[in-house]
Amino acid sequence: MLTNRYSVNEKGHLTLGGADTVELASRFGTPLYVFDEDDIRGNCRSFREAFEKNYSLPCKVYYASKAFSCKEMYRLVDSEGLCADVVSGGELYTALAAGFPAEKIGFHGNNKTPDELAFALDSGVGRIIVDNIYELYTLNDLAGEKGKKPSVLFRIKPGIDCHTHEYIQTGQIDCKFGFALENGEAMEAVKIASAMDNISLVGIHCHIGSQIFETQPFIDAADIMVKLATDIRDTFGITLKEINFGGGYGIKYTEKDIPTEKDTDIKILCENVKLACERYDFPLPSLSIEPGRSILDASTLTLYKIGVVKTIKDIRTYVSVDGGMADNPRYALYGAEYEAVVANKADKPRDFTATIAGKCCESGDLIQEHTKIQTPQVGDTLAVLATGAYNYSMASNYNRLPRPAAVMVSGGNPRVIIERETYEDIIKKDI
Amino acid sequence: MLTNRYSVNEKGHLTLGGADTVELASRFGTPLYVFDEDDIRGNCRSFREAFEKNYSLPCKVYYASKAFSCKEMYRLVDSEGLCADVVSGGELYTALAAGFPAEKIGFHGNNKTPDELAFALDSGVGRIIVDNIYELYTLNDLAGEKGKKPSVLFRIKPGIDCHTHEYIQTGQIDCKFGFALENGEAMEAVKIASAMDNISLVGIHCHIGSQIFETQPFIDAADIMVKLATDIRDTFGITLKEINFGGGYGIKYTEKDIPTEKDTDIKILCENVKLACERYDFPLPSLSIEPGRSILDASTLTLYKIGVVKTIKDIRTYVSVDGGMADNPRYALYGAEYEAVVANKADKPRDFTATIAGKCCESGDLIQEHTKIQTPQVGDTLAVLATGAYNYSMASNYNRLPRPAAVMVSGGNPRVIIERETYEDIIKKDI
Repeated sequence: MLTNRYSVNEKGHLTLGGADTVELASRFGTPLYVFDEDDIRGNCRSFREAFEKNYSLPCKVYYASKAFSCKEMYRLVDSEGLCADVVSGGELYTALAAGFPAEKIGFHGNNKTPDELAFALDSGVGRIIVDNIYELYTLNDLAGEKGKKPSVLFRIKPGIDCHTHEYIQTGQIDCKFGFALENGEAMEAVKIASAMDNISLVGIHCHIGSQIFETQPFIDAADIMVKLATDIRDTFGITLKEINFGGGYGIKYTEKDIPTEKDTDIKILCENVKLACERYDFPLPSLSIEPGRSILDASTLTLYKIGVVKTIKDIRTYVSVDGGMADNPRYALYGAEYEAVVANKADKPRDFTATIAGKCCESGDLIQEHTKIQTPQVGDTLAVLATGAYNYSMASNYNRLPRPAAVMVSGGNPRVIIERETYEDIIKKDI
Repeated sequence: MLTNRYSVNEKGHLTLGGADTVELASRFGTPLYVFDEDDIRGNCRSFREAFEKNYSLPCKVYYASKAFSCKEMYRLVDSEGLCADVVSGGELYTALAAGFPAEKIGFHGNNKTPDELAFALDSGVGRIIVDNIYELYTLNDLAGEKGKKPSVLFRIKPGIDCHTHEYIQTGQIDCKFGFALENGEAMEAVKIASAMDNISLVGIHCHIGSQIFETQPFIDAADIMVKLATDIRDTFGITLKEINFGGGYGIKYTEKDIPTEKDTDIKILCENVKLACERYDFPLPSLSIEPGRSILDASTLTLYKIGVVKTIKDIRTYVSVDGGMADNPRYALYGAEYEAVVANKADKPRDFTATIAGKCCESGDLIQEHTKIQTPQVGDTLAVLATGAYNYSMASNYNRLPRPAAVMVSGGNPRVIIERETYEDIIKKDI
């Protein structure tokens, strides 16, 4: 079942990281997000150790916190020696509220507001990844006013077109993010930055997509980015010390997905950067990556209670759960694929074809169509697997449904890391 | 510009309901949802008066509050003599917190939890629209325990397939909502309910889709529902007194949309119900409808600040605003079409083709592609029109962006009806 962190106990219940998911549902209520702390820590270490093994300079692994931003996640990745990337003032605020060291934060965004840039400068974030020329000017002005000189990377569109869902392609030129290479935009920005008093340009950044299973795009990126660093040195005499290759490492949402090992991904990246540096006679830069989804990985799930089983003869069976697109909008948004398991019948065969529907008042509120689960009955607990990334973070109060709680399991023991919303919470801002 | 509630003042600024939108943005900040109270009140009256004019029995207009649920909306529709439909405990809680009379509430949902049904019974909601057989049994049991006898309508799938976006078709048989007609499910449920001690079956309900511009589906629905009521009378000797035809009335999102007049829609419905009652020799029932989107209508908008204008030669220009899919996910979800106006240049021609991008860290975070606006500059205020329905209600904290404030304008004067979230609000449930 997706990862070896899943198992079935003597009661026939699905377990994750040693915890009985049926007991979790009963103790904490549903819907419930469940995260496997031990696995997440292992993923942090896999990335970090892969760099230590394969590269001679210190490298940084930034947890891309937009995948799942809450105070406990920042504490967890901090304790594993990771940095964090944030994409908004709200994520920065959350990280700082969790005690995350500002100097280990990279600040991203295609349209950072002046308020957000000021917040980043005031907090002393370690890196600001500048997306566009307006931001560069604004940042230089603000830094001047505040007597600061932020360390900046430029976000580059390397022109790589990954074979992933079109919504999450970000490396090609037709993209809202970053400076294009092809049209000279990136070099022009370097020229402008090099003349600025309050900007310290330390590196370049790219992000070529999400949920990528191929290694070739990363190999291409290594060449393109080292070549750009070489061009910058040869043109402006600036030798950049950092290249950040972003994230995009795929995870196993379904049995069809075959992601490469984290260690392999990093090894290939390191080797290809070394080759490119030899090729262009460029000194080895420090490397960074920004995994988000792949830090959480597939050892995460959402638990629901099944409330209705509606079989429409010769058409399909709708299995309605007590959550839906409000807590997991990814099927509605992207047609995202998930595996699901009836948690209290996990020892039974998954031979029933179901459409898993939510409780929102909208026909498009489906979590998965025509998927195999155990024969469902009203009252069963349904686990939808690998929901850790981009579910809680994208959750809404659509239909004024309270957002679920989240628990983290370590050594089989759960603890709440995000409390369930109440109705009172939902109306709090209503006048 | 979509409706006559929009205008351009002497400063060249877009106005809505007499309020200068540029001033609203400056006073209340962006992003900002703006609602035209006078227009909303007019829409409530149009529906209500159309029934008074065209039908001899008292009828009910339920505001489908899932379109935009907040305390002030319940107060507003209450003061206009409307009822309200709610689809969850959270919406019911909000309505009651606003002082909305419980007996004027209809409670919907394809998977109401036992807790929600108990809440509905305890509050004394006027109608429960029962979706399925499990709910019927649960409700009968709960009502018995509580010594209540709720007035119930059955939600019927009339088998009508509207030519609207596939996500929001709800009248066809392949749908998670309601009892099917074709396979005898509906009649079987009536039989079961008629033998129950704690259920008072008073009517039937259908909802044939959303954003419908045709009148034929409503004409067909009138015939099908009256025929079903006749069959129920002839088979079980029960003469139902209410038929609820749901919502679905389309609004003008763009100039291409030509919705029928509310008065015309209701006149056609009333006439066709009367014709069907003559045809089947059935006594005129009381009628209800559930407009949501069409109560808010097109005289609503979202104001943003433009932060980046990025022209990619021979490809397109991305205009990035300080909101996005977090406050308006409808383009990402449905490819929904919107018109946009540079509010501070509303007197200039809309001759610039732009892709309006949000500030979320995701390439799919777009609000509209290849749309015509005035030539944009950084610092301009952008108004995206007709965003009142299903924007705030579906808004998330993706990227931990605070949800915007909402203001209502009456007689040109704005007042805040939903406060802007703060960063502190966002981390409130984090442990």
